[in-house]
Amino acid sequence: MESPFQYREGQLTCDGVPLSSIAAECGTPVYVYSAQGILDRFRAYEDVLAAIPHKICYAVKANANLAILGLLARSGCGFDIVSAGELFRVLRAGGDPASIVFSGVGKTAGEIEYALTKGIHSFNCESHAELATLSSVAVSLGRTVSLSIRVNPDVDAATHPYISTGMRDHKFGIDINKAPALYERAASLPGISPEGVSCHIGSQIMDPAPLLEAVVKVVDLAQQLIRAGLPIRHLDLGGGLGVAYTNEQRTPAIANYLKEVIRLVGESKLTVMVEPGRSIVAESGALLTMVLAKKTSPSKQFIIVDAAMNDLIRPSLYQAYHEIVPVAKSEGPHEIADVVGPVCETGDFLARERSMPPVKAGDLLAVLTAGAYGFVLSSNYNARPRVAEVLVGGGTFRTVRTRESFEDLVRGETL
Amino acid sequence: MESPFQYREGQLTCDGVPLSSIAAECGTPVYVYSAQGILDRFRAYEDVLAAIPHKICYAVKANANLAILGLLARSGCGFDIVSAGELFRVLRAGGDPASIVFSGVGKTAGEIEYALTKGIHSFNCESHAELATLSSVAVSLGRTVSLSIRVNPDVDAATHPYISTGMRDHKFGIDINKAPALYERAASLPGISPEGVSCHIGSQIMDPAPLLEAVVKVVDLAQQLIRAGLPIRHLDLGGGLGVAYTNEQRTPAIANYLKEVIRLVGESKLTVMVEPGRSIVAESGALLTMVLAKKTSPSKQFIIVDAAMNDLIRPSLYQAYHEIVPVAKSEGPHEIADVVGPVCETGDFLARERSMPPVKAGDLLAVLTAGAYGFVLSSNYNARPRVAEVLVGGGTFRTVRTRESFEDLVRGETL
Repeated sequence: MESPFQYREGQLTCDGVPLSSIAAECGTPVYVYSAQGILDRFRAYEDVLAAIPHKICYAVKANANLAILGLLARSGCGFDIVSAGELFRVLRAGGDPASIVFSGVGKTAGEIEYALTKGIHSFNCESHAELATLSSVAVSLGRTVSLSIRVNPDVDAATHPYISTGMRDHKFGIDINKAPALYERAASLPGISPEGVSCHIGSQIMDPAPLLEAVVKVVDLAQQLIRAGLPIRHLDLGGGLGVAYTNEQRTPAIANYLKEVIRLVGESKLTVMVEPGRSIVAESGALLTMVLAKKTSPSKQFIIVDAAMNDLIRPSLYQAYHEIVPVAKSEGPHEIADVVGPVCETGDFLARERSMPPVKAGDLLAVLTAGAYGFVLSSNYNARPRVAEVLVGGGTFRTVRTRESFEDLVRGETL
Repeated sequence: MESPFQYREGQLTCDGVPLSSIAAECGTPVYVYSAQGILDRFRAYEDVLAAIPHKICYAVKANANLAILGLLARSGCGFDIVSAGELFRVLRAGGDPASIVFSGVGKTAGEIEYALTKGIHSFNCESHAELATLSSVAVSLGRTVSLSIRVNPDVDAATHPYISTGMRDHKFGIDINKAPALYERAASLPGISPEGVSCHIGSQIMDPAPLLEAVVKVVDLAQQLIRAGLPIRHLDLGGGLGVAYTNEQRTPAIANYLKEVIRLVGESKLTVMVEPGRSIVAESGALLTMVLAKKTSPSKQFIIVDAAMNDLIRPSLYQAYHEIVPVAKSEGPHEIADVVGPVCETGDFLARERSMPPVKAGDLLAVLTAGAYGFVLSSNYNARPRVAEVLVGGGTFRTVRTRESFEDLVRGETL
């Protein structure tokens, strides 16, 4: 699928809208998202899964901007949430409660009560302790929880250790071999209807093989549970499909992966739920930044830009690679440089030892594939106001989150 | 110096105030700071430096809460800022502009104008490009910039690579061997008065030896510049003194370090400026959190708490170690566990493979030495509202930043 960010007559555009015009109106740094890019990727899931009973639940944690959630909600997308705050966001954006699944390893009783009261679709239960809480909250509210147990298929997702989640020694899920006993217990508890099996083995997975290996295991488990008389109706296969962050990588084709899923789920008639996050939004976003200065140390070139680790922490936190390209195509010999922000620590970098085209102070750069785990992880470190977010659609753009002010920095503080 | 966090009759207190009473009133997670602890550490600097002309400029980036800045301002402390946002905070807290030094590698012309207009003490200049900007902004405002050039003494600070800043291939500072030429240029520019020499070799430095090695180098440079006729009046020695994060470490004595500094600066009559951050606030803060559940995977114990990587990212980002202790002393056999938060990634941990006393759901834990680089780096990841901050003083406590609401999460967003 083509990136929404393409050069036209030497100028980088988002769906044809020049990024320079967005910078001119909104300033920098600014996150820019493509509505079309997001919808195209959602439809890549929808088009294949339409062949079977299914539910696509966008993983809100990847990018929780209300405008993006609204866009997906109006297209019929469901939502995977991991906190009460994410539920609040989805409801504010007009999401249908019946399309929401609640995942996460540390749900509080208060969060469970909030979600049950709003009538969400189901809960992915992570532990014995949570099962007990779910039952007691459900009983106290006179409601029934539609429950999946998140099983841990012990599949190696072959990704960054921080975002691999499906191994036996991770905090997530229940050992798949111990799941039948827990399902039996769930079935015996008041207020609990064990209707699904769920798993999620990690994030940014470039080779679908481990994802499919996990599918085989959860299908087997579901069939075993059905034979045991449980009312299993859906499989929640989680998310995890990766995207290309470098020009050398290739984003796995969503359709190919899903066709294999359908083949493996076979004749089971189970509703297939998926929870894509990154694969919907990552490639549809860029962080637009301005070059403040160039600097030469005895052994290195630095390009100092106005975006920093507080705006995009992935390079520092996950050693992530993002392509960084000039908004106005520049010609001339490339040089090796670190692209760094103004934050006062050496860990503040967007790229290291990168071959960069000629740039000068005032030039605009675009940090690509920044639509997922970008703004949501941003902070006010170094008392930097969080940046604006802009959504491009219908040949124009609008600010969907305003840049923070200095007053915003101190909100809630008392001298 | 003793920690403000001590057990009394089996209950962990902050300056005698039980942490359990703070949790009961303010909820968890919550950052708790000791006013006394902060002032004691500021006075450890002040008491020794009182022997010579000096200025202590607290590094705001370590903890920028208005109440803490106000406390220090009222005690006569100056401030080291790295952004316009930090200047706004200091002024809002009642800091004296004449006590402020502006550091940082990416100051914009707008930030420089704001700071000059407010009449700050001096700028630590980081590059040729910044020198030119400083001169042109000063001329346009009809003002003169008191300037130090941040020199890079090429000293190995022996700390985490992300917070080591004084090596030749870091983005910070000017090669000390090239500094004389830049000072000459500075002296020739309109609106610039080169009055200081500054350096900052890194953070969390446990052995003062490299700090002192840098002092020798900048004293030499200052004397060389004075001989060349420049109006050098102050040495800005930066910050960097570390604190003990583990029980095995020992916080370097502030007084011992400063006595060596005074010896090295000798008879120069130069004003000595220091920029301590972490050594003032780290040990004076703790993150209070509640155990949500325990969980056993086939090979591991997990203690799931309500604080997460969005509240305190140091363990994930810097592989930092923080002592974690129960608020109510607990007896019984210790077990090895990971202390993890509710955020949906494996990188969300506060401690790994830690020997922990017996704890159960509902227990309070204190993450110690969390007063620096804690709240300032916090985010809304997973749509988690940022936590409250509480200041203990005079035998009582007050909320100095309220816990964020769900409405705060979406402020500025448009559907």
